[in-house]
Order: sequence, then C-alpha cells, then structure tokens
Amino acid sequence: MRTPTLSQDLYDVIARRRDVRAEFSGKPVALQTLRRVLDAAHSAPSVGHSQPWDFVLVFDEDKRDRFAEHVETERQTFADELPPDRRETFGRIKVEGIRESGLGVVVTYDPERGGQHVLGRHAIADTGLYSTCLAIQNLWLAATAEELGVGWVSFYREEFLADLVGLPDGVRPVAWLCLGHVTRLQEVPDLVRHGWRDGRPLDEAIHFESWRS
Amino acid sequence: MRTPTLSQDLYDVIARRRDVRAEFSGKPVALQTLRRVLDAAHSAPSVGHSQPWDFVLVFDEDKRDRFAEHVETERQTFADELPPDRRETFGRIKVEGIRESGLGVVVTYDPERGGQHVLGRHAIADTGLYSTCLAIQNLWLAATAEELGVGWVSFYREEFLADLVGLPDGVRPVAWLCLGHVTRLQEVPDLVRHGWRDGRPLDEAIHFESWRS
Repeated sequence: MRTPTLSQDLYDVIARRRDVRAEFSGKPVALQTLRRVLDAAHSAPSVGHSQPWDFVLVFDEDKRDRFAEHVETERQTFADELPPDRRETFGRIKVEGIRESGLGVVVTYDPERGGQHVLGRHAIADTGLYSTCLAIQNLWLAATAEELGVGWVSFYREEFLADLVGLPDGVRPVAWLCLGHVTRLQEVPDLVRHGWRDGRPLDEAIHFESWRS
Repeated sequence: MRTPTLSQDLYDVIARRRDVRAEFSGKPVALQTLRRVLDAAHSAPSVGHSQPWDFVLVFDEDKRDRFAEHVETERQTFADELPPDRRETFGRIKVEGIRESGLGVVVTYDPERGGQHVLGRHAIADTGLYSTCLAIQNLWLAATAEELGVGWVSFYREEFLADLVGLPDGVRPVAWLCLGHVTRLQEVPDLVRHGWRDGRPLDEAIHFESWRS
C-alpha cells in the first residue's frame, strides 16, 4: 500500500496538478497504482451511464517513438503558422514527454456504447465526448494524488493515432496522456512560466443571470 | 470556514460523487462556498492555457422555470423515440432538479478565447470543448467535497439555452448544472438503481498496446 507524503485533500490535489512535459523520471509505474488511477477515471459520470471511454496503454517503445515523431511533425506545422515573436516563444516550450514518461494512455470515445437510445444524448450528440473528458480529469487528479505526472498531448492527427493503436471504425481518440513518475511538479504552469499566456481572473469568467449582466 | 464532516480525500470524493436529480433540499448555497467550487473549476487544465470556459449563474426563478419547461418538452421527445419497455423504465427516472436545486450553472465554451493560435488546438478543434469539460469535473468534485450535489442536465437544445442566458454569437453552452444542498447522496447511481443500465467492468475498458490485443 502506498504511503502518500503529500496531502490527498481534493483542493490540494487540484492546486498541485500540472500538465507535465519535462519532469518525467522514467521510473515505471506500479500496476496496482495504475489500476487505482484508471478506476478513478472509470468512476466518472457519463451521459446515460454509457461509460463510453476506453484506455489503451502504450508501453511499447517503438509505438511511442513513432507517435513522438508524428507529434514533432505537427509541432512544426503549428510553428510555421505563427508570427515570428510567437514562434520564438513557442520554440522554448516542450510539448510532450512521450518517450520519457514510459507510458502513453490513449483515451478513446465510442459513440456506439450504450446502444441506440442513450439517455440524455438525443439533443446533443457531443455529450458522449464530454463524458470521456470527465473521466480524463478524474484520471489526472488521481495520478496527481499518487504523485505521478500527466501530460496531455494534442499535437496529432486523429487518424494517425487511431491507426497506431488499432481503434475500430467509429471509435475516436480523445487524448494521448503521458503518464509517469516525475522528479517534481512545477508550481507555475509551463505556458505561464514561458510567457505564452497568462491566466484569466476568475471574476471575468463569472456572470450573474445572463452573460451581459 | 466550513467544517467538513466527510472525508475530503480525493478518492473518497470521487467515489461519493453522484449525478443528483431528486435530493436537492433547496437551501441556498453560501457565496463563499460557491466561489471555492468555481475556483476549483477555473483551476482545470486547458489547451494552450486558453481557459475557454465561463459560468453563468442562474438564480432567477422565472428563468429556471422556463428552462424546466423546455427540458420537459425534450424529455417527451426522447420518450417518444423509445420502445415500450424502455419507455416504461424511463418513466420512473427523474432527469433534472432545475427548480429544486435553486441554482443553475451554465458552463459555456468560447472558441475565440486564446486568439487565433491556440497552442495544441491546430490539429483537433474539439480540444477547447474538452478543456471546458475538465473544468466541469473539477467543479463537480469540489461541490461533492463541499457536501453539495450537482446534476448535469442535457435534455435541451443548445439554441434555447444560449438565448435564455444571452450568450454571444459563437459561445456554446456545454452544460446546465443544477447545484445545491442535498438531503443525501445516493450510493448507487440512479440509472443503475432504476434498471436503465448497469456499469461496465473496468477490465473491459483496458487494452494493452492496441485495442485488439
């Protein structure tokens, strides 16, 4: 059984959580720890209790290499779109830890899960995707509580990743999560630290009764 | 300051969390509690640190009435699609606590937030929506830690809700969350309890290296 050295209080875990790129140590994650983290993800709410997510665990070095190479290409595609000053800032930012983390968790969405009549999805097709993201956030917080790091990589084409991990037709990859032990978690998010983008004050995000009030 | 009577341990909160419909007590939520919950949501990760979410707080009784009437219509639309046996099961299930909860939190997604070049979104447009859902799960867990209940209502047309709370063009409603004090949280999810759908074993959701292995 793990003996946590940091607070497991929900608010503390939420505050400690980071999107990790550079701090993976490469030490393998114990399978029972991984299972607790996936069980937390699987405990998320879902539209019509459809639980439309799956988790493909990619340990294989060759597969992770191929994904990292693809991501590097997409990184370049994005860099090419940027004006010079932003490109320079972007150049300092590491966008993935695919090789170093030792494990990629591909989280997928299956729109067929739950049959023809998914309770709560008839008016808004995307609610199944939303459920999958709720599972991802549970996973992320559980990993943080376990003193692991998670880094969500989104510099990829969905078809490439679907093919890499053999997804059936219609099943959509939602995330590649680098998951692994870390030397530390940063206190300030990378994109703030590197001058990419500051945070927005909470008060600006809160509206009373209607957006315009 | 609150004195929590239940464990605030992340895993306990994840296990306790429910999608609430029938258990709202109507007791108003203290504003400082509400702020802690929204601050937790606002601490979620987001693509390119874009923080594309907003929270429209709907206390107004007339607005909640109008939304509840619209949801009732959509409930009927869904019921009409069901085969008879499923319609009977569905008839027993309460799908919202819009009036009883006393507060609706409309969580929205603004694709313009973060400017033209959102780091990590060029290849997958939906990543901004995904971020908004991560904020929702943080909100949900924080509310649970505060011994509040959350019920995600998705029986609505997006245009109706956008109009009801005056969203600017292009800003999309992602959820109506009923938020309020509860008499209790159920131990078993409503949809399992009422025979709508059982849970899927975690092992079925885990794949090693590729989907087919």
